[in-house]
Amino acid sequence: MSRLDSFIRRLQAQRIGLDWACAELGPGFVLELGLGNGRTYDHLRSRLGSAREIHAFDRAVAAHPDCVPPADHLHLGDIRNTLPEFADRYPHRTALVHSDAGSGVATETAALAAFIARHLPAILAPNGLVVADQPMPSDALAELPPPAGINPGRYFFYRLR
Amino acid sequence: MSRLDSFIRRLQAQRIGLDWACAELGPGFVLELGLGNGRTYDHLRSRLGSAREIHAFDRAVAAHPDCVPPADHLHLGDIRNTLPEFADRYPHRTALVHSDAGSGVATETAALAAFIARHLPAILAPNGLVVADQPMPSDALAELPPPAGINPGRYFFYRLR
Repeated sequence: MSRLDSFIRRLQAQRIGLDWACAELGPGFVLELGLGNGRTYDHLRSRLGSAREIHAFDRAVAAHPDCVPPADHLHLGDIRNTLPEFADRYPHRTALVHSDAGSGVATETAALAAFIARHLPAILAPNGLVVADQPMPSDALAELPPPAGINPGRYFFYRLR
Repeated sequence: MSRLDSFIRRLQAQRIGLDWACAELGPGFVLELGLGNGRTYDHLRSRLGSAREIHAFDRAVAAHPDCVPPADHLHLGDIRNTLPEFADRYPHRTALVHSDAGSGVATETAALAAFIARHLPAILAPNGLVVADQPMPSDALAELPPPAGINPGRYFFYRLR
């Protein structure tokens, strides 16, 4: 499989996972951890409609101008600061967290995922969902089998216990 | 259609187009204009095998280390210099040019595509193919209908007249 093949599969898995979550999620916020170029933000927005409040987090804005959330839903800076602040301000109000915050450096990415995982229980509403590009190790999260069409280990799915 | 949907379709079209070209092309070099992250270079390499010589062009190396061609097949710098130099050195020896050199700025991208198009006739071998993310305006190139699965206007296909 070429890197092009692998990348297409990864994006297809991401889309299947997000579409699954959009069909499953309850009331509450959606969090996009790692706005990046804004593609998955745009996907969530288009699937969920404008009534759903989506909060996006990133170090700085690198997204297409059409894919930048309004300022009061955009949390810029180190996620090690912005995510705990959000948890304090909006505890247990989030229906879905999509985390796509990998840096490309495996050890950094795993450390960041572990940090995010520790803060998710305070953020998620009952039955809250997590869709992530990395494992999210937390005793408070039950790992779910991936939706049909996604190979195990390509994307990760959790529900708050 | 979300930006994620659109991006997946673009990559699928790119793969269909490259696979079509790999099945059609004759003997000669393959040129990758815009190495980028190296995904399509890796795809061409995996489809065509190690015996096929692929020359890649880019301003600077930004590709994954596994997807960087050997130094004598890597042409770094402004393509406005490196492409004419290649044409002088290797006239009419190229079976396929894949051009994915858009900068994101429409006027710049169109100007660069026009520049590339002007130099292709001197580079291409008889029946040489061009697969491009932008239109390649040249009287010496006959536009081909896109292979099945690609909507017109999403990717562009030419054969040297």
